[in-house]
Amino acid sequence: MAYFNIGKIQYEGPQSKNPLSFKYYNPDEVVMGKTMKDQLRFAMSYWHTLTYMGTDPFGGTTMSRDWDQTDDPMKKAKERVHAAFEFMEKMQIPFFCFHDQDIAPRGKTLEETNKRLDEIVAVIKEEMARTGIKCLWGTTNAFGDDKFVHGAGTSCNATVFAYTAAQIKKAMEITKELGGVNYVFWGGREGYETLLNTDTGLELDNLARLLQMAVDYAKEIGFTGQFLIEPKPKEPTKHQYDFDTATVLAFLRKYNLQDYFKMNIEANHATLAQHTFQHELNMSRINNVLGSVDANTGDPMLGWDTDQFPTNVYDTTLAMYEILLAGGFTKGGLNFDSKVRRASFQDDDLFYAYIAGMDAFAKGLKVAAKLLEDGVLENFKAERYASYKEGIGKDIVEGKVGFKELEAYALKNGTTPNKSGRQEMLESILNQYILETK
Amino acid sequence: MAYFNIGKIQYEGPQSKNPLSFKYYNPDEVVMGKTMKDQLRFAMSYWHTLTYMGTDPFGGTTMSRDWDQTDDPMKKAKERVHAAFEFMEKMQIPFFCFHDQDIAPRGKTLEETNKRLDEIVAVIKEEMARTGIKCLWGTTNAFGDDKFVHGAGTSCNATVFAYTAAQIKKAMEITKELGGVNYVFWGGREGYETLLNTDTGLELDNLARLLQMAVDYAKEIGFTGQFLIEPKPKEPTKHQYDFDTATVLAFLRKYNLQDYFKMNIEANHATLAQHTFQHELNMSRINNVLGSVDANTGDPMLGWDTDQFPTNVYDTTLAMYEILLAGGFTKGGLNFDSKVRRASFQDDDLFYAYIAGMDAFAKGLKVAAKLLEDGVLENFKAERYASYKEGIGKDIVEGKVGFKELEAYALKNGTTPNKSGRQEMLESILNQYILETK
Amino acid sequence: MAYFNIGKIQYEGPQSKNPLSFKYYNPDEVVMGKTMKDQLRFAMSYWHTLTYMGTDPFGGTTMSRDWDQTDDPMKKAKERVHAAFEFMEKMQIPFFCFHDQDIAPRGKTLEETNKRLDEIVAVIKEEMARTGIKCLWGTTNAFGDDKFVHGAGTSCNATVFAYTAAQIKKAMEITKELGGVNYVFWGGREGYETLLNTDTGLELDNLARLLQMAVDYAKEIGFTGQFLIEPKPKEPTKHQYDFDTATVLAFLRKYNLQDYFKMNIEANHATLAQHTFQHELNMSRINNVLGSVDANTGDPMLGWDTDQFPTNVYDTTLAMYEILLAGGFTKGGLNFDSKVRRASFQDDDLFYAYIAGMDAFAKGLKVAAKLLEDGVLENFKAERYASYKEGIGKDIVEGKVGFKELEAYALKNGTTPNKSGRQEMLESILNQYILETK
Amino acid sequence: MAYFNIGKIQYEGPQSKNPLSFKYYNPDEVVMGKTMKDQLRFAMSYWHTLTYMGTDPFGGTTMSRDWDQTDDPMKKAKERVHAAFEFMEKMQIPFFCFHDQDIAPRGKTLEETNKRLDEIVAVIKEEMARTGIKCLWGTTNAFGDDKFVHGAGTSCNATVFAYTAAQIKKAMEITKELGGVNYVFWGGREGYETLLNTDTGLELDNLARLLQMAVDYAKEIGFTGQFLIEPKPKEPTKHQYDFDTATVLAFLRKYNLQDYFKMNIEANHATLAQHTFQHELNMSRINNVLGSVDANTGDPMLGWDTDQFPTNVYDTTLAMYEILLAGGFTKGGLNFDSKVRRASFQDDDLFYAYIAGMDAFAKGLKVAAKLLEDGVLENFKAERYASYKEGIGKDIVEGKVGFKELEAYALKNGTTPNKSGRQEMLESILNQYILETK
Repeated sequence: MAYFNIGKIQYEGPQSKNPLSFKYYNPDEVVMGKTMKDQLRFAMSYWHTLTYMGTDPFGGTTMSRDWDQTDDPMKKAKERVHAAFEFMEKMQIPFFCFHDQDIAPRGKTLEETNKRLDEIVAVIKEEMARTGIKCLWGTTNAFGDDKFVHGAGTSCNATVFAYTAAQIKKAMEITKELGGVNYVFWGGREGYETLLNTDTGLELDNLARLLQMAVDYAKEIGFTGQFLIEPKPKEPTKHQYDFDTATVLAFLRKYNLQDYFKMNIEANHATLAQHTFQHELNMSRINNVLGSVDANTGDPMLGWDTDQFPTNVYDTTLAMYEILLAGGFTKGGLNFDSKVRRASFQDDDLFYAYIAGMDAFAKGLKVAAKLLEDGVLENFKAERYASYKEGIGKDIVEGKVGFKELEAYALKNGTTPNKSGRQEMLESILNQYILETK
Repeated sequence: MAYFNIGKIQYEGPQSKNPLSFKYYNPDEVVMGKTMKDQLRFAMSYWHTLTYMGTDPFGGTTMSRDWDQTDDPMKKAKERVHAAFEFMEKMQIPFFCFHDQDIAPRGKTLEETNKRLDEIVAVIKEEMARTGIKCLWGTTNAFGDDKFVHGAGTSCNATVFAYTAAQIKKAMEITKELGGVNYVFWGGREGYETLLNTDTGLELDNLARLLQMAVDYAKEIGFTGQFLIEPKPKEPTKHQYDFDTATVLAFLRKYNLQDYFKMNIEANHATLAQHTFQHELNMSRINNVLGSVDANTGDPMLGWDTDQFPTNVYDTTLAMYEILLAGGFTKGGLNFDSKVRRASFQDDDLFYAYIAGMDAFAKGLKVAAKLLEDGVLENFKAERYASYKEGIGKDIVEGKVGFKELEAYALKNGTTPNKSGRQEMLESILNQYILETK
Repeated sequence: MAYFNIGKIQYEGPQSKNPLSFKYYNPDEVVMGKTMKDQLRFAMSYWHTLTYMGTDPFGGTTMSRDWDQTDDPMKKAKERVHAAFEFMEKMQIPFFCFHDQDIAPRGKTLEETNKRLDEIVAVIKEEMARTGIKCLWGTTNAFGDDKFVHGAGTSCNATVFAYTAAQIKKAMEITKELGGVNYVFWGGREGYETLLNTDTGLELDNLARLLQMAVDYAKEIGFTGQFLIEPKPKEPTKHQYDFDTATVLAFLRKYNLQDYFKMNIEANHATLAQHTFQHELNMSRINNVLGSVDANTGDPMLGWDTDQFPTNVYDTTLAMYEILLAGGFTKGGLNFDSKVRRASFQDDDLFYAYIAGMDAFAKGLKVAAKLLEDGVLENFKAERYASYKEGIGKDIVEGKVGFKELEAYALKNGTTPNKSGRQEMLESILNQYILETK
Repeated sequence: MAYFNIGKIQYEGPQSKNPLSFKYYNPDEVVMGKTMKDQLRFAMSYWHTLTYMGTDPFGGTTMSRDWDQTDDPMKKAKERVHAAFEFMEKMQIPFFCFHDQDIAPRGKTLEETNKRLDEIVAVIKEEMARTGIKCLWGTTNAFGDDKFVHGAGTSCNATVFAYTAAQIKKAMEITKELGGVNYVFWGGREGYETLLNTDTGLELDNLARLLQMAVDYAKEIGFTGQFLIEPKPKEPTKHQYDFDTATVLAFLRKYNLQDYFKMNIEANHATLAQHTFQHELNMSRINNVLGSVDANTGDPMLGWDTDQFPTNVYDTTLAMYEILLAGGFTKGGLNFDSKVRRASFQDDDLFYAYIAGMDAFAKGLKVAAKLLEDGVLENFKAERYASYKEGIGKDIVEGKVGFKELEAYALKNGTTPNKSGRQEMLESILNQYILETK
C-alpha cells in the first residue's frame, strides 16, 4: 500500500525544472573518494517526519496524514512504520533515527510499553530487511511524560531516575536489535528552571551516575554502538546542563567518562547557544568527539528551536568542511532533525523539505571538497601559523622554553610584524567556490 | 594633596538623606561571623576608575580629571597612584586590582616598559604602607597594543606569544612584589574572528602551553597567589576561547591544569554568555573553583560589555548567597570592574557609583545571610531531594545498582508522585527577605 | 461547591509567616488618593488560570484540576466558570479577562460555537451578579484553530478573513453583554513566516480594513468599551505585525485609526522586542495610548514568551511609576497574563503565584507613589531640562527660531557646559525607596 | 601622486583567479534595463574607508596609511581627499558619502570648523570635476564630540540643540554645494541611557522641531536633495529613538513630517533590531519610503554594530529583490557603511573588502532580476492571494462589507481549505536561482 502519491525522487541535475527532483544530490557520484551517499549518510528523523502534526504553543494540528486515520494506537504505529519506509525509499534516504516513543505509544505500565516496543521493532526489522535501510541511532524519550517534570536522570525524585534507567536500558536493547550504530543521549529536561530550588551538584553527579551505568550495561550486553551526547543550551528548561560541546566535555572529563561519548551536534542547538554550527563542529573535531550531526537550522532572529530544514549553502558548506577535515563520518551521519513548517502541511511538503535539505548538503559537500582539494583555506592557515614551525615558535610548541627564555627573546628581538588576517578576501573566495563549483 | 573635594564616606544607615553616605555598607558590622569588610573584600579597579575618560565607539572623552592635567606620562602615572589611594581611603575600599598598563604607560621597548613599572610599583608600595590598602590581584594587558591584533598566547605569530610570556612574567613579579593574593588571566583577544583563517587546535594548545609556563614560573619564584581565569564569551573577538566557566573547565581538564586555576566570575560576562550571574557562581562553586568576582552588571537588552555598577539587589543577594554557600571568600573579593556611565562624567559620580555598588552588595550580603540562617532555601532543597537519602535513591547515589536493578525496581514500583517545585512561592519569599531584612 | 481547599486570602502585612496571605496587597489601603484595589484593578486571565494544564513544546500536561474531571465539554466549561469565580473571590481579584474559546469550546460550526458562547455567558453573568466581579476585557481566539494557519485578518484566504470578522463580532457582543470595559486585539498569527511568499502590503491593508469594520460595528451596537491592541514582536510567527507600541502607532496613523485604539502592554512582549516593560509603558504614555497592562514577566535569557508571574519589584515599581504618571488606570487594569510554571502543578500554586504577583505590584505601587510624592525623579528632570524654559531654549520650544537664528546663536555663544546625568546616584536612590518605603 | 600601489580593478568574470579583479561586478552590463552601475549606485563611505584606523573598545589603532603621515590636520585632510578619489577611481565607485567631520577636522570654534569645511569642500569639488565621481549624501557628526554627551537634537541642554542646528545647516549647505542628492539624519546619540532621568516626551518633540527646521531651511535655500532618516535601535545609547522603520514612521506621522523623509536602511541596524535586512527594506517599500541603503552586514551572534562588508549572497539577493520591486534606486544608492576588520589592516584589504561587497551585490542583483523576470515568487504570491480578487475577498478589499455581512457569509459558507505556504520549496528554488543564475 502506498501512503504517498509521489514516485521515487531522482537526480536530474541543477537545471531541472521538476520541483520533485534532486538538483545536487546524486547518491552515486564520487566526492573525495566516496559516494555522496556514503559521505553524507542521510537519516530521516522519525519524530518530525511521522508524528509532527503542526502544533505549536499557540495552535493545534494543521496536518492530517493517511497513516493516522485509525484510532487504534498500535495499528497507527504500524502504519507509520510502513509510511516511514515508503518515504525513505522514495527519498533515497539510507538511515533513520528514532525515540522509543516515536515508534510505539507509551503503555499504561513500563511492561506494556516494552511489549509494544518489541511488537513494533519486529515490524521495523521486516521493513529494514525488505529495503536495506538502516538504523543510524536510537534514543529514549525521557522528557515528554509528566513524570519527567523535574528532569529524568537529574530529577529530584529517585524513582524517576530509576524509571529513566529502565527506559534507556530498553531503548539501548532495541537499538542494538535494530543494528543501530549509535545511541544518543539528549537531556530533554536535564537542567533547571530556577536555582532557588535546585541542587545542581547532586543533579550533575546523578547524571554522571546514569551515564556510567549506560557504559557498564553496554559492555555487559555487547552493544558496540557509539554513545553520543547532544548539546542544547536551553528549552524546554531555562538552563540545560548539556549547554554546548565545551560544557559537555567539562562534564565528561570531570567524571572520567570522556572515552565513551562523542557529540551529536545540532545546528539549531548551536545557534541557541550563540555559536555558529561550524563552531560546534570545529570544537568537536579538535577534541576528537565529532560523532554525528542533527542537520537543521534555526532562525538567528528567533530564540527557540525552530528545527527548520537546512537550506543555507554557506552553513552546509562550512559544516561539511569540518566533517571532511575530521576524516568524514564513520558511524555518524546527517540526521534531518528538521520539521516542515506548520504552514507546509501537505504531504508533498515533506518531499520538498527533504529535497531542499539534501540538495543543500550535497552542494555543501561538493564545495567543501573543492576547497580542500585546492587547499584554499588550509594553505592559507599553514602559512599563517608558519612561525610555529621554526625558531622560537618551534621551541614553544616543543616545550623547550619557559617564561625566562621567552622574556630574554622578547627583550632582544621584540616582535616581528603581523600580517593581515584577510577575512574579506577569504569570504570573497568562499563565495566564488560556492557559486562556481560544479 | 587632595584630588577629590569630598570627605570620607561614612555609614549613616538606610534613612540617611545624604547621598554621599553609605546606607547599607557598615564595614565593621558582623554578618555570619565576619565583618562586612571581610565578607565583601571590596576592590577598586584601577582601569575603570583612574583611566576611563568616557570614550565609546562613537565618541571621545567626556571626563577631565585633576590628576591627568600633566603631559608627562610618568608624572601622570604617579599622580594617578595618589588619586587612587585617596579615593580608596575615602571610600573605605581595602583592595585594588590592576593591569600593568593601567599603572604605568607602555614604553618604546619592553625594557623601558618594565623599568617604568618598577618605578610606579615603588610609589604604590609607599601608598600601600601608608594606608594599609592591599592588592587583590594583578594582570597584564595583552590585548590593547596592535601587536596583539591576532591574539596574545593564541596569536598566529610566535614572537607575539613570546612577548606575551614576557609581559605575564613581569606582571606576576610585580603582583608578587605588591603582595597580590591572586593573579588573573583575562584572555582579551584569545579567540577568533573567523574560522576561515583560524587553527583553533593549535591556538588552544598554545594557550595551554602558556598557562603551564605560568604555573612553572610561579613555583620557581615562589608566587603563591591564586591563579584565576576570567571567562568571557565574546567581545572584542567574535568568539573568546574562555567562553564561560564550563568551557574553561573543559580546557583546564584537557590539559591537566585544573589544580592551578580558579575562576574570576564577572557578572556582565555571564550575561553575555546568556547565563545569570548566579549561574556562573553556582557552576564555579560546585566545581570548587569559585575564586573571585568582578562585580558589575550588564544590560540584558544590550549585547556588549556595559560594565555598569551593580545596583540590582536581586543580583547581589543571589551572588552573595552562592559565595556564602561556597564558604565565603578566602583569597578572592568583589572587584568593581565597573565604570561610571559616559554621561556621569563628574568626579563625584565616582563616589555615587561606588556607593551604589557597595550598598547593593552590603544589602545582598545581609539578605543572603538571613536566608541561610533561616534555612529557607536549603531546607526546601533538602526535602526536595530527600528520596536520595534512603531506599533506591540511596542505592543510586552509593553506586549499588545498575540498569538491571533499576529496571526491576521500575517494573515493580513505577514512580512515586512528584511534588511542585514551588518556584512562585520561593520568589515571593525571596521578595519578603529582600524587603524586610534589616 | 468548592474547587479549592483554601480559604480567602487576607492581608496580614509584611511580617506574616503565612505563605497564603498578602504581605503588601491591602485592597482598601489608600495610595495617592485611591484604594489599592482601584489603583491596581487586578484581573485574572481565564486562559492561563483555568485552561493551562502544563503542556510545553516538549511535553504533555502536568496538571489535573477538579473542575476538569468530566468528559462533557459544556459541563466542563460551566465547572470552569464556577472555579474561576471561586478563585477570584478567594484571591480578592475584581476583574477577569477572557477569549471566547477559553470560556466555551469551539463547536463544529460557527453557529454552534456562538450558541455555546451564549450558554456560558449566561452562567458567567450569574456569577458576576453573585460576586460583583467584573469583566475587564474580552477578545477572540483567531490563532489556535488550523483555519488560521496563515493568519486571521491577514490570511491569504479571504474566507478566513470573513470568519475572523464573524468571530470578532460575536466576541465584541458578548464582551458588551458582560459589561467589559475594553476589547483587546492580539494578532496571534497576524504576521509572516517568510517574505518569500508574503504580500505584506496587502496583509496590512486588510488588517486595517478589519479594524475599521470593528470600529464601525462598535458604533452601530453602541459598544463603548476601549479598543486595545496588544503589541508582540514574534511568536508564534517569525514576525508579528504588531511588533511594539511604535510599530502599532505607525500602523494606526497610516490608516487613520489612531483615535480608536490604545495599547494593552504586556511585559514579556516588551522584552521579546528588546525593550524594557517601562519603555513600552513610557512610549504609550507620551502618545496618550496607555490603555491596559498584561502583567507578567519574561526571562531575559530566554527568547520565547514565558509568561511568568511578575515578582521583580524593580519592574513593578517602574511600571506603576509610568501608570501613575499617566494619571492611573481609567478603563484598564493589571491583567495577570501569567501562568504558573509547568513544575508548579498543584492547585495551591495558583494561589502562591497570584499572591506573588499581586504583592509585587502592591509594593511597586507604594514605592512609585512615594517617589512621585517626594518628587525625586520629576524634580531632577525638571532641573535637567530647565534650559528649555527660558532664553534660546524657550524660543526653540515655542517655534520662534530656525536654523539661521540658531547658527547665529551658536557662533556667538557656543554651548553651555553639560551636567552629569547622575544615573548611578538615581539608581541608588531608587534602591533606597524600594527597600525603605513602608 | 598615488597612495595605493594597486591598479584599477577590472571585471574579469567568475573564473578569474586574480583576487584583485571583479568576478561579478561588470559596471556596463545591462540588468533589467539599466547598467549594473546605475542599478547599484555604489558609494564609498568616507569615514570607514579614510579615517578608521582599527581601534575598538579594547585596543588601539592597527592601521597606518600613507595619507596620514603628516601632523598638520588640514594637510592630512587634503591628502585624504586625494586618497579617497584615487581609491574610488581604482574601484570604479561612482559616489561617496560623508560626515562633515570626516572631511575636515573640527576647529576650536564653530567658525573655524566651518572655514575648514569650506577649504576642504573646494578640494573635493576639484576632484569631483576631475573624476566625475559624485556625492550621494552628506550628513553631520553630532554625536562624537563631548558636547553631545546627552544627545544633540534631544539634548537636555538647549544650547546643544542650537549648536546641532548650526551644524546641520552647514552640512546641508556643503552637501548642496557638492551636488549631494540626499541628506542623511542618523541620530547618533538621539536616545536615552536611563528613563530615570529622561523626559522622552520633550526630547521627541524637540527632535521633531529640529527636523521641521531642516525642512524649512531646505526650502529656503532650494536644497532639493532627499532627506533620509537612518534607523538604528541601540548603540551608542541604550535606546535610540529611531529604532527601526516602523518607529520612524510613527514619529514622522505624529509630527506631520511624513512627506519629507525617506529611510536610509542599514543592514546591521536592521539585525540589531532583530529584523532581517529584507524586512526593513520591505517595510520601507510598502510605505513608499525606501530611499537609500547602507550596505554592510552584522554578525547574528554579536550584539553590536560590526559594520562588516556584506558578502552573503542570500542577503544581497533578497535586498536587491526588494529594491527592484520598489522600482530601483532613484536618488539613493548602495553606500558601503562597512569597515575592514581590525585584523585586515593592510591597504590592499580595502580593495579586497570593496571587491567582496561589490561582487556580492552584483551577483545579488542578477539573481533578483532573474527571479523577477521569471516571476517565480510574484506569480506564487499572486495565486496565493487570489481569493481577494473575486467574490467575498473582492468585497472586503473594496470596502463593500462589514461585520454583519461577513458573519452571514461565514455562517453560510464556513471557510475554504487553506493551501500550503510552500516555504521549503521556495527556499529550494531560491538556492537554485542563486547557484545557477549566470
